[in-house]
Amino acid sequence: MASKLLVDVHTHVYLPRYASLLRSRSSVPKIVSLNNQERLVILPNETTGRPVGAQYWDRDEKLKFMDRHGIDVSVVSTANPWLDFLTPSEAHSTALELNNDLEEYCSTGPNVSQTTNLDVLKRLYGFGLLPLVPEISTESVLEAVKQIAGAPHLKGLIMGTRGLGKGLDDEALDPIWSAIEEAELVVFLHPHYGVDSSAWGEKDNGHVLPLALGFPFETTTAATRLILSGVFDRFPRLRLLLAHSGGTLPQLSSRLASCIDHDPVVATRLKHDARYYLGKLYLDAVAYGSEELGFVSDVLARAGRYEKGAHQETATVRSAGSDRMLFGTDHPFFPPLSATEKWRSVVENLDAIENVQGWSAADKDAVRGGNALSLFKLGSKA
Amino acid sequence: MASKLLVDVHTHVYLPRYASLLRSRSSVPKIVSLNNQERLVILPNETTGRPVGAQYWDRDEKLKFMDRHGIDVSVVSTANPWLDFLTPSEAHSTALELNNDLEEYCSTGPNVSQTTNLDVLKRLYGFGLLPLVPEISTESVLEAVKQIAGAPHLKGLIMGTRGLGKGLDDEALDPIWSAIEEAELVVFLHPHYGVDSSAWGEKDNGHVLPLALGFPFETTTAATRLILSGVFDRFPRLRLLLAHSGGTLPQLSSRLASCIDHDPVVATRLKHDARYYLGKLYLDAVAYGSEELGFVSDVLARAGRYEKGAHQETATVRSAGSDRMLFGTDHPFFPPLSATEKWRSVVENLDAIENVQGWSAADKDAVRGGNALSLFKLGSKA
Repeated sequence: MASKLLVDVHTHVYLPRYASLLRSRSSVPKIVSLNNQERLVILPNETTGRPVGAQYWDRDEKLKFMDRHGIDVSVVSTANPWLDFLTPSEAHSTALELNNDLEEYCSTGPNVSQTTNLDVLKRLYGFGLLPLVPEISTESVLEAVKQIAGAPHLKGLIMGTRGLGKGLDDEALDPIWSAIEEAELVVFLHPHYGVDSSAWGEKDNGHVLPLALGFPFETTTAATRLILSGVFDRFPRLRLLLAHSGGTLPQLSSRLASCIDHDPVVATRLKHDARYYLGKLYLDAVAYGSEELGFVSDVLARAGRYEKGAHQETATVRSAGSDRMLFGTDHPFFPPLSATEKWRSVVENLDAIENVQGWSAADKDAVRGGNALSLFKLGSKA
Repeated sequence: MASKLLVDVHTHVYLPRYASLLRSRSSVPKIVSLNNQERLVILPNETTGRPVGAQYWDRDEKLKFMDRHGIDVSVVSTANPWLDFLTPSEAHSTALELNNDLEEYCSTGPNVSQTTNLDVLKRLYGFGLLPLVPEISTESVLEAVKQIAGAPHLKGLIMGTRGLGKGLDDEALDPIWSAIEEAELVVFLHPHYGVDSSAWGEKDNGHVLPLALGFPFETTTAATRLILSGVFDRFPRLRLLLAHSGGTLPQLSSRLASCIDHDPVVATRLKHDARYYLGKLYLDAVAYGSEELGFVSDVLARAGRYEKGAHQETATVRSAGSDRMLFGTDHPFFPPLSATEKWRSVVENLDAIENVQGWSAADKDAVRGGNALSLFKLGSKA
């Protein structure tokens, strides 16, 4: 039965404490009231934002959404921009409080079922938060890593791309990567800032350009800088889950490898071809199309060919990449524009999994749930 | 025999007149001398640039490169940043002069062979230039379109992403798109600016981030803004060739479609699902990996499913997308770091084509040359 569970690894919450914090603010990120409707304004250069309501903070609404879409388990994470806008001491105390809140949100929630052969499986697990802001002490961050590692229902942490202000290729993060690796926590890497908004031009295209392009560009840049910094050579057991199927890193990975090979500054820096490191990643299946998912699976499957000394001619099988891909919804974002029984965005992502050419029924089941159970060690006997 | 020709559609030149212009400048873009070595400095925020020599301007060097790699025909284009840095009157006169220079570069060059059943086929054809700079008159640009259309060996034009200063989604370009469509010229859309360099962080990674990521991000953004502006609805016969296999547009196209569907500002603007418009594009095969090319072919093949009113369930065959993909080298960029018989970057792109799963031998021949002969109507009887 466990192999048929539907597990959502990309689903967000603004915990009540966090929503209150956003309501108290007068600059972005903030929640404002406009004509009796609360609106969330979080993106750089955003003006009126988007309507928000109970879907964003109420656990009952999350469970209703899960029920409606047949989702058994959600691994919930605070949505962007996390704690990026706080001072070091505010970020530190808020991280610890929100991690406690999220542990309680999960632990006091329902169980999946008493009838599985699994140990007790909850319906809600969480990604905690680290106080990653400029000028915070390493000790403060490590305290939060330790707290998360000790919280039974927190299975990892969500992280933006700014690190301590200089990005994720900053060596100052090495003790933090080391502690995360040691604690076997999964890092969920998620975008927020996109790219400079001058790229989007003057036309009003709503949120399309920052969301459809900016978000994936940011994730791609962060992951590429991580690869170039040698983090995966130094911390080979680090488990990173990239949002939105890795942004555009899969499509650019051979170009990246070629650019590295042709640039004297970096040509000999890394242990392996850049494409090897993609095989160390986990990617959510939030790409809205089956051709996209099939390609991502190809790129994960081929990674072993690019280990130093491997035979690059070896043919690879798409199916082999599916065990690092995991269903997600991006709830409560991407709500339908008009009322529907099921959210179109969720149906699209489920259909995409079902229709990947070259994936077996078992592969699809694994992407829908089994891979998440393994990655997060959910429901296994203590 | 024509079906076995190797045709390079992505290959650049700095014509002698253009190289002289760059040598005369004291700000980027420029060619400087450093220790008796000329260096090209063209990227925003670039300092020392890269070494340049005869490969960049000498036609004999282009032909030697072609001979060494078995390339029968090259469709040559001026490299970035074209005329972007000139005043309107300078851009106008320089475009006309460079178009004449390029026509002569091609027309006075060698023929492929006397033994084919084609009409005379030259080894060199060209993409001309338009004086697309802020505040230029539409008439000046249309004059260059007309010049190119009348030049027997110029088969299209290369274009950056800034248009008249506001990007390619500017309605002021409509008369120009119309004239290009009418003249059946191919627009080769090529990046130069990337994204704001703050995205790359503080580490020295050579040119890797702006080239591997920034270039494709820029192309993706420009093509997406074109789609959103409705240009392909207004000019359905416009033929656009995107550099670097479309950047990241293929991997983001389903996300783009979903973001459009979920955004009240744009949800009802376009005639078709965003993925439909990818099927109107031509993409070079400069992606350095066979999985990438196969995926791009999938995305082109599926486009018809997304025409309004089409049955989206119809299965598509990868092979069907190959007829809009065309071999390229990006010469003289991506030179090998140490001397080799053949350039690694060229071998990678040829191997990638050869190894695409699901492409027939005929598909591969077409991508290597046949598609270019058709697109540019090369060698056909007058």
